[in-house]
Amino acid sequence: MPYGHGVAVGGVLKRSRELVRPALVEAVGRLHPWTGEMAAYALGWSDASGTPGRGGSEGKGVRQALAVLGAEAVGADGGVAVAGAVAVELVHTFSLMHDDIMDGDGLRRQRPAVWKAYGTGPAVLAGDAIHALAVQCLAEAPGPFTGDAVRRLCGTLNALVSGQAEDLRFERHPWSGTGAVGPDQYRSMAEDKTGALLGCAIALGATLGGAPSATVAVLERAGRQLGVAFQVVDDLLGIWGDPAVTGKPVHGDLRLRKKTYPVLAALAGTGAAARELAVLLDSPEPFDSATATRAAALVEEAGGRAATREEARRHLDAARHGLREVPLAPGAAADLDALFAYLLDRSW
Amino acid sequence: MPYGHGVAVGGVLKRSRELVRPALVEAVGRLHPWTGEMAAYALGWSDASGTPGRGGSEGKGVRQALAVLGAEAVGADGGVAVAGAVAVELVHTFSLMHDDIMDGDGLRRQRPAVWKAYGTGPAVLAGDAIHALAVQCLAEAPGPFTGDAVRRLCGTLNALVSGQAEDLRFERHPWSGTGAVGPDQYRSMAEDKTGALLGCAIALGATLGGAPSATVAVLERAGRQLGVAFQVVDDLLGIWGDPAVTGKPVHGDLRLRKKTYPVLAALAGTGAAARELAVLLDSPEPFDSATATRAAALVEEAGGRAATREEARRHLDAARHGLREVPLAPGAAADLDALFAYLLDRSW
Repeated sequence: MPYGHGVAVGGVLKRSRELVRPALVEAVGRLHPWTGEMAAYALGWSDASGTPGRGGSEGKGVRQALAVLGAEAVGADGGVAVAGAVAVELVHTFSLMHDDIMDGDGLRRQRPAVWKAYGTGPAVLAGDAIHALAVQCLAEAPGPFTGDAVRRLCGTLNALVSGQAEDLRFERHPWSGTGAVGPDQYRSMAEDKTGALLGCAIALGATLGGAPSATVAVLERAGRQLGVAFQVVDDLLGIWGDPAVTGKPVHGDLRLRKKTYPVLAALAGTGAAARELAVLLDSPEPFDSATATRAAALVEEAGGRAATREEARRHLDAARHGLREVPLAPGAAADLDALFAYLLDRSW
Repeated sequence: MPYGHGVAVGGVLKRSRELVRPALVEAVGRLHPWTGEMAAYALGWSDASGTPGRGGSEGKGVRQALAVLGAEAVGADGGVAVAGAVAVELVHTFSLMHDDIMDGDGLRRQRPAVWKAYGTGPAVLAGDAIHALAVQCLAEAPGPFTGDAVRRLCGTLNALVSGQAEDLRFERHPWSGTGAVGPDQYRSMAEDKTGALLGCAIALGATLGGAPSATVAVLERAGRQLGVAFQVVDDLLGIWGDPAVTGKPVHGDLRLRKKTYPVLAALAGTGAAARELAVLLDSPEPFDSATATRAAALVEEAGGRAATREEARRHLDAARHGLREVPLAPGAAADLDALFAYLLDRSW
C-alpha cells in the first residue's frame, strides 16, 4: 500500500526528533544514574554496558512527531509541543519495557529486552521511573494549558493499562461459544492498547498549542483510529509477514495461538473453514509447521484476512477523514496525513 | 518508647480512613476489573479470589491521615485533602506491589504478595494501573492548587523510585574500603525511599489547604525526617525485633546480609569489633545462627545499635520540631505530633 510519501515523512520525523531530543536527553538525565542507564538502553542510545552510540536502532519517533504536528496543525509553533512529545515518548518507552516482562518477550528491536539485559526487578523499576518522569515533564511545562494536558495524559495511561489488561485476559477466553472474544471487543482493546497513546500524542500537541477542546477531541479520535489500523496490520504481519522483515517466524502468532483480529474475524464466520479452524485452535496439541500453515489457510478461507484488511482500511480512512473535519494549518495537516499513511505503508 | 497517645491516634486514623474511603473506593472502581481486583487484594479489601471482606488486615492508613492533618494544620477542612490522601495511599500500594517483585518478598501483611497470588506480569500491570490512577485522581481534583499538588506528587514519585534504585544498588557495594556505603548515603536513600512519601502526604494536604509554600516546605521536611526515623527503626527491628511481632526470623536482615543502618554505622567505626564484623560480612560463607548471633553482638559492640537509636531519636526530634517552626492550628498540630510519635512507638 505505498503512498509515495516516504521522503517527506522522513524529513518530518527527523525534524521532530531534532526539536525534541535536547529536552528528552535532559529529562532522562534527571533519573537515578542506574535507571537512566536502562532508559538510555531502551531508547537505543547506548548498549547494555552503558556505552553511548552503540545502542542499535533508535525508534522512529512517531509519537513525538504526532505531538509536534498536532501543535503545528492548530497554528502553533511546534516548540510548544516539546513537553508533550517528551511525555509520549517516555510513556511509550516505559510501556514497552513492562509489556515485554508481561508477555515474556526477550527481544526488542533485535536486541535483548531490558528485562533480559538487566533483570526483571530492575526493568520493573526503570519502567516505574520513566512512567513517573513522563508525567513530571509534562506537569512542569509552563503555560496555561498544562493542567488540561496532564489530565489527558493521565486518562491515556489509564486506557493504555486497561488495553494491556484486556489483551492479557483474552488468553483465558475460549475460542468459540459463550465468552469468546468478538471483533468488537478486540477493536476496543486495540483502541486502548495502541490507539490511546497515538491519539494522546496529537491531542497533547494541539492542547499545548491552545486549540479549542472540540478540535482536540477530533484529532485525538483520528489518532485512536490510526492506532486500531496499525494494530490490525501488525496482526496481519504476525501471520503472513516476511520473517526477514518482522524478525518473527512465519505464522508466528498462530503458533502462539494469539487471539489476533484475523483469527477472531475468521471465527466469527459460520462456514466450514471457521468450524475447522475452531477445532484446530481448541485442540490441546502444540502447532507444528503443517498445522500452522493449515490454520493460516483456514483463516484466509474463512475471510479473516480480507476482513482485517478491510478493518485496517476503514480505520485508516476514518483517521485521515478526521483531519478534514476541522480547520487545520494546511502544511501540518498534509504532513499528518502523510505520516498516517506512512505508518500503514507496509506489505499487507 | 511509649508516648501514651495510642488512643487519640487510633481515633485520628479511623476518622481519616472514613473521610477518604468513599473516594478511594470510587478511584479503584475506575480501574479495569482485573487490575481493580488486584488493587482490592493489595488494599486488604478482598481475598485472592476477589471475595470482599476476607482480605485480612487493611493498612493503618498513616499516609492518608498525614494528608488530612496537613490540611487541618493549615486551617483548612480535612475534606480538601481527600484527593491527595487517595493519591498517596495509591502510590504506597503500587510501590509495595512492585518492590515485593524486586526484592523477591513473597509475603506482605501475612498474606501472599500480589505477585505470588496473581503472577509477576499481572502484578507489574496492576502496579502500573494504580500508579497512573494515583496521579489521575489528584490531577482531576478541582480547585486552584491542583497543579502545584501534581508537581509535588511527581517529584515524590521520582524520589521514591530513586530511593529504591539506590537501595537495590547497595547490594553491589563492598562492605568496607573504597565504594563502601556510608551512613550519609544510607540516610539519603532512606529519605527518598521512605521519607519522600510521608513528607508528600503532609505537603499535599497543606498545599490543597492553600498554605503558603514556605509552610508546605517545612511540613514536607518534617515528614521526610519522620521517614528516616521510621526506616532506621525498621532496621533495628530487622535485627533485634521480636519474630512474633515482625514476622521475620531473629537476626533476619543480618542473615540476608542487608546493608542496614546499624551495620553500616558499626562498620564506620575503627575498633576491633568493626574489623571483625567486616571480615565476617566479607566472607563468602552463608550465615548460620551462631554467626548471625556473633554478627549482631559485633554490631552492638561496635556501636551500631546505639548509633541507630540516636539516629532515630534525632530525626524524630527534628520532625516534631518542624511542627513548631510554623504557625499551625493547635488541634491538628497536636494530632500530627502524636501520630509522629505513634509511628515510632515500637520496642527499639
